[in-house]
Amino acid sequence: MEGNAANRCAHRPRARRDKEPKQQERKARNTSTNKKRKHPDAAAAAATAGAPSAPAAELVPRHYTVSIAVAGSIVLNAQSPELRTYLIGEIARAAAIFQVDEIVVFADASGAGASYNWGDPNLFFGRLLQYIETPQYLRKAIFPHHSDLRFAGLLNPLDAPHHPRAHEQMVYREGVTVDTPASISGGSLVNVGLRNYIHLDRRLKPGVRVTVKMTSAASSSGSSRKYQASPQQEMEGVAVSPEAPRETHGLYWGYTTRLAKSLTEVFAGSPYKEGYDLTVGTSERGHQSIDDEDFALPAFRHLLVVFGGVAGLEACVEAAEDLDLPAGKTHTLFDKWLNVCPDQGSRTIRTEEAVPITMARLRPFIVKSGRREK
Amino acid sequence: MEGNAANRCAHRPRARRDKEPKQQERKARNTSTNKKRKHPDAAAAAATAGAPSAPAAELVPRHYTVSIAVAGSIVLNAQSPELRTYLIGEIARAAAIFQVDEIVVFADASGAGASYNWGDPNLFFGRLLQYIETPQYLRKAIFPHHSDLRFAGLLNPLDAPHHPRAHEQMVYREGVTVDTPASISGGSLVNVGLRNYIHLDRRLKPGVRVTVKMTSAASSSGSSRKYQASPQQEMEGVAVSPEAPRETHGLYWGYTTRLAKSLTEVFAGSPYKEGYDLTVGTSERGHQSIDDEDFALPAFRHLLVVFGGVAGLEACVEAAEDLDLPAGKTHTLFDKWLNVCPDQGSRTIRTEEAVPITMARLRPFIVKSGRREK
Repeated sequence: MEGNAANRCAHRPRARRDKEPKQQERKARNTSTNKKRKHPDAAAAAATAGAPSAPAAELVPRHYTVSIAVAGSIVLNAQSPELRTYLIGEIARAAAIFQVDEIVVFADASGAGASYNWGDPNLFFGRLLQYIETPQYLRKAIFPHHSDLRFAGLLNPLDAPHHPRAHEQMVYREGVTVDTPASISGGSLVNVGLRNYIHLDRRLKPGVRVTVKMTSAASSSGSSRKYQASPQQEMEGVAVSPEAPRETHGLYWGYTTRLAKSLTEVFAGSPYKEGYDLTVGTSERGHQSIDDEDFALPAFRHLLVVFGGVAGLEACVEAAEDLDLPAGKTHTLFDKWLNVCPDQGSRTIRTEEAVPITMARLRPFIVKSGRREK
Repeated sequence: MEGNAANRCAHRPRARRDKEPKQQERKARNTSTNKKRKHPDAAAAAATAGAPSAPAAELVPRHYTVSIAVAGSIVLNAQSPELRTYLIGEIARAAAIFQVDEIVVFADASGAGASYNWGDPNLFFGRLLQYIETPQYLRKAIFPHHSDLRFAGLLNPLDAPHHPRAHEQMVYREGVTVDTPASISGGSLVNVGLRNYIHLDRRLKPGVRVTVKMTSAASSSGSSRKYQASPQQEMEGVAVSPEAPRETHGLYWGYTTRLAKSLTEVFAGSPYKEGYDLTVGTSERGHQSIDDEDFALPAFRHLLVVFGGVAGLEACVEAAEDLDLPAGKTHTLFDKWLNVCPDQGSRTIRTEEAVPITMARLRPFIVKSGRREK
């Protein structure tokens, strides 16, 4: 049963959808001389349909991905259900700030299998991550009431581009199919958080989360009409891959959540056909320091950065039954075994602190080495 | 009354103390070829008296300082007293991780003067920062019961070198003078968290926090005797400046807390004779990005990094009555007006997130440009 639950938790429930047609891709690249970068908000606005002044040059399609993996047991270190919830919110926020595409929660010895009076820490972690990632207007349709979500009101909003503000015109929107039949024959209706449902060309089961590319709004390009303005009109859209906003417009479009039964499964269960091609393990005992003058990341397509639990990654390895590896050899699991915070003034860095600190330090290297081409 | 309370809150209560005699300074510098840096824990251990294998080469005296200033109003953004407390703990932890020497809490329009049913947000902020910075064994003697400390149990420990673990042999220890008369005539007794009080050569009022350099332990150098071993013996120490551990051994020795009535007072009230000689304002609208290839910090002695409130530093300036400056000119207050998180995937970065992210990105520049010489 736990396995089933884990599977349910492991992906956003999504319909199969067409890949974004290539000819629609705006091949806009940032000019390297343009030093003042725009806020993604601006980039998001630029990707709106019918915005005549859209500075297309700001949009950089991104074909690489960044994943992070964290030990699920860290929630056990929080002192109350409220703080447990808050801690997960902090990890989610750090992931969004640094445009992380996948968060993997792995069971480590201190969390896996143990029974807590409040449930399974990894499931709790995964469910909350998914909840936070879901735009507010979809939560009711996607998440049934659950005790894990009891303190979800304390979470700080993700405020990512796929959580659009009211009346914000976006080319893409996250939606959920509804069971109202479409007035136009065929297809289905999707709630994308606007007053009107969007009419999709394809028939999908109700209750499925889907990324929608707005087409009718795009066709009225140049007009300043708001989506909300004509309640009687049924707007058109097509279901696209959730990767489309990133791959065509460089928009950060949230993260997927994956539960891994062990550290080994973090690597083996990669959702990318070719697996992760660059893996970084973080440790204060890392062989390399990010301050080293010659530190760099090799070119990559799918980066994975792994964070340990309260006692570090070595302890996760030590306790892993499926891994016949002494703790001292933990570094052999990774391409890079990295200390991202040399000369730390505290003896300990908590995982929820390590994630933003690490991603902040790695960011310039990621931007430099992530393969942008398809 | 509020002013008095603010003053009480503004400094650690400390006795005047002798500067560390220069000849005792270990002039040990890191060799540049040694790439694997030791954890400060190791550095702290190295600074212990009588540790025969102390790798003195790891100790780099530090003569520059780093201050951060944050808008006190950010605590108003937390949703419960527990989270308000936790948020301040996060700022304190980030400060310790990045060896921040001073935290200034400034009153901005949204916080200053307003009355909340739970008290003054800036005082609350300052009191908690001080509480967290104080080693646990001194808290009872220094902090009377106060409703602001109600949820202090939720705070994660600072775990900095001046919060020694039991039996850890340190050259320096934080202590508080007790009102037991010393058995040796003259001087006073100090509780430094060991079984025995330390005998200081000078007479100090009881209840004063003081940084103690252990001398009797140092004189028995080479022996493996633990401080606790001889309960009948009164150990000797001298009161030193709280800067001594940093200036002589490069040990991070906590932060001081200062309350400023306005943004202007952040600059004007610098505890350093010569003021701050490098000021950085942080904003997503910063003129410079930390990703710029030519970004660098000029050489400095006293760095100040300023963080705004919920609506950014511009809003603090806009609302500041003593500053006749339009928000658009906020950058003129700083030597650098910096965006430390370009291409952020969330529209907003909360101040408690901005502090660790900013300090992580600035750290290599700080280490490079901070003046080490006296």
